[in-house]
Amino acid sequence: MNEGMNHCLTGLRVLDFTRALAGPTCSRMLAEMGADVIKVESAPNGDLSRGASVFRNRRSVFFVQHNRGKKSFCVNLRDPRGMALIAELVQQVDVVVENFKPGVMAEMGLDYERLKALKPDIILCSISALGQTGPLAHKPGYDYIAQAYAGVTSMIGEKDEAPYIPLVGLGDVSTGVHGALAVLAALRHRDRTGRGQHLDVALLDVYYNFHEVNVHQIKASGGKIKPTRVGRHMTYLSPGGVFRATGGHVVIMSFFHHWPDLCRAMERPDLIDDPRYKNDLVRLERRDEVVKIIEDWLHTFPDVPSAVAHMERFNVPVAPVLSVEDTLSYPHLRERGTVRTISDATHDGEFDVPGFPLKFSEFPEELPLTAPTLGQHNEEVLTQYLGRTAADVQKLREAGVLKEERR
Amino acid sequence: MNEGMNHCLTGLRVLDFTRALAGPTCSRMLAEMGADVIKVESAPNGDLSRGASVFRNRRSVFFVQHNRGKKSFCVNLRDPRGMALIAELVQQVDVVVENFKPGVMAEMGLDYERLKALKPDIILCSISALGQTGPLAHKPGYDYIAQAYAGVTSMIGEKDEAPYIPLVGLGDVSTGVHGALAVLAALRHRDRTGRGQHLDVALLDVYYNFHEVNVHQIKASGGKIKPTRVGRHMTYLSPGGVFRATGGHVVIMSFFHHWPDLCRAMERPDLIDDPRYKNDLVRLERRDEVVKIIEDWLHTFPDVPSAVAHMERFNVPVAPVLSVEDTLSYPHLRERGTVRTISDATHDGEFDVPGFPLKFSEFPEELPLTAPTLGQHNEEVLTQYLGRTAADVQKLREAGVLKEERR
Repeated sequence: MNEGMNHCLTGLRVLDFTRALAGPTCSRMLAEMGADVIKVESAPNGDLSRGASVFRNRRSVFFVQHNRGKKSFCVNLRDPRGMALIAELVQQVDVVVENFKPGVMAEMGLDYERLKALKPDIILCSISALGQTGPLAHKPGYDYIAQAYAGVTSMIGEKDEAPYIPLVGLGDVSTGVHGALAVLAALRHRDRTGRGQHLDVALLDVYYNFHEVNVHQIKASGGKIKPTRVGRHMTYLSPGGVFRATGGHVVIMSFFHHWPDLCRAMERPDLIDDPRYKNDLVRLERRDEVVKIIEDWLHTFPDVPSAVAHMERFNVPVAPVLSVEDTLSYPHLRERGTVRTISDATHDGEFDVPGFPLKFSEFPEELPLTAPTLGQHNEEVLTQYLGRTAADVQKLREAGVLKEERR
Repeated sequence: MNEGMNHCLTGLRVLDFTRALAGPTCSRMLAEMGADVIKVESAPNGDLSRGASVFRNRRSVFFVQHNRGKKSFCVNLRDPRGMALIAELVQQVDVVVENFKPGVMAEMGLDYERLKALKPDIILCSISALGQTGPLAHKPGYDYIAQAYAGVTSMIGEKDEAPYIPLVGLGDVSTGVHGALAVLAALRHRDRTGRGQHLDVALLDVYYNFHEVNVHQIKASGGKIKPTRVGRHMTYLSPGGVFRATGGHVVIMSFFHHWPDLCRAMERPDLIDDPRYKNDLVRLERRDEVVKIIEDWLHTFPDVPSAVAHMERFNVPVAPVLSVEDTLSYPHLRERGTVRTISDATHDGEFDVPGFPLKFSEFPEELPLTAPTLGQHNEEVLTQYLGRTAADVQKLREAGVLKEERR
């Protein structure tokens, strides 16, 4: 049982109704910090994501990445005997997490009031695209839907062209992390006061909170600033953005006191105090010129690594735009554990996944977690949490209340 | 004193050395949940961000947005008397947060070992761009530098063109949230075991963890998949992405069982079972065709809202790509508190900021927090935490150890 794994959240018990990505990220963050997570999977098929990124032996590596360290309890949620087991389990846990469309938990008879009746200090964390309240709460929601409503999509691309979406699950993943934060805050409150609560964490709110300047600028500037996408460069500092180089691209952030560093790297000390370029304000006015000077110079190098290495010698804040494939073998990312290689018994082969993004000095090694097969922990959960015997479990199995994948 | 404010983290004390964005987001998340945060600002000028987004009365609304609910303690950190006060304060708090370049805390004599000597169970949260360890740790780092190293930038834009960066501080903000999560997990461990620790939270690791599929696909597919940017549409489901419409753009996520919904909305029931379009796999093969069918149809509407309203009637997952200005008055965002209007005494006027992204049923109202002027809480901090008298404080002020902005 994970309950024995020593980490920050050892002893914390979570009943996890999540599927896909945002919800599972929340419970995965908790599991990677030692919490005991029971993933409830609806019989017969369980989490839909078991069908995503399947490359070998019908094993989804997507499922593995996002469900390591969880126990799978696969039960028929349309069978009253299954729901009775769920009600018993609620009484044994600290936290319930779910990311159904708002209203579905209530339809299942598992809304917050009902959970609270089962366990008075329960913490329910509800994760959704657009939130549990408000006129759009009922809408079917996905990451990019929330991103578009949050005004984030409008900030990516060229001004007069259609915007881009990053092909990265950042809204879902980040919202899962926000959910985990809300859960730990609520636990602190519960531990002090004995009171549980219902947490409402939405991709929309998370995306919106990413606007570090765009939201406040509009009214505070008297309407003069209307933030929108304007290409590959920052709007309030310069130079800062993506630059074309030989055979690839680099990010250079050489504003403020970094401008002289870049000028020296370019062997153009004359530009440091040139009135046309001497500070961010004038450089912003001549941004296209500044970009051209830098890109022309970058093309005097044979490739990106040599250009980056040269700039690093002058302390210029710079990075190569790495492809995902590049990152897998990049020394810094390997050494730090930003990328890690894991194996999975069913997939039968190694593959890479992102390392756990929080590093703890008390727990320098990541926990040796594995992802469950469907219903793998049915017996363990029922015997250890609910005091059932192996024979009881067998009966439930035969009655079709429980489901287990043949291995 | 905030210490009296009732929320999840009431009573938690944080000494905050952060500046700019990622670090201040961490301590702001804690402050918005009731923690008592003392922001240490280096005399004479304090947080550099006091110079960002200044529109009226020399007051930075950037500073206000990211520092609400914190106390400003402005002290000369190059004066041994100032550092002695810091050492005393460390002994009075639970958590220290910093986002200096790695190594700077040690230069200031405030590395983890020294903090631990002052307070054995202290939790130090260090936030940085590329981490405290690894060959690149020493590099000057900014949000987009970490984004480029994480392979995220490479996933935004057209395949054969330079990539884009989102003009949104998502890496910094999200990393601050990750830091707050690490802090609360470490506090739980401390409360159980009496042990503090050092937390290392980096934008690079946070960005990398956003790759929900890109990292695992490469090796698991035997090298067949090499994720890269491919425009405005998803690579493993279709249709899903940004579509051009009359006068604007929409996001449509009509894969899986949503395809028939969209076909009905388009009055094209013939496409539902058409072998060229009937499932995600074949639609992906004909993605350009699918996009053209949808965009041509979208242009039969006079504008984006009418197209969105029509699709909503058919339960199609859809969103208008809102500009940031649009979001300020969008009913759902206002009603939910995704956007909130605040005022600041010094700025003397209202402006909008993102609402707190976590919603707690126990605390339905956000705390009435204000942002401090420079050194506003010098006397409060020294009298209430360190037992100094007002006369003691006046002497430190006159000696130039403390700095206070005239109001």
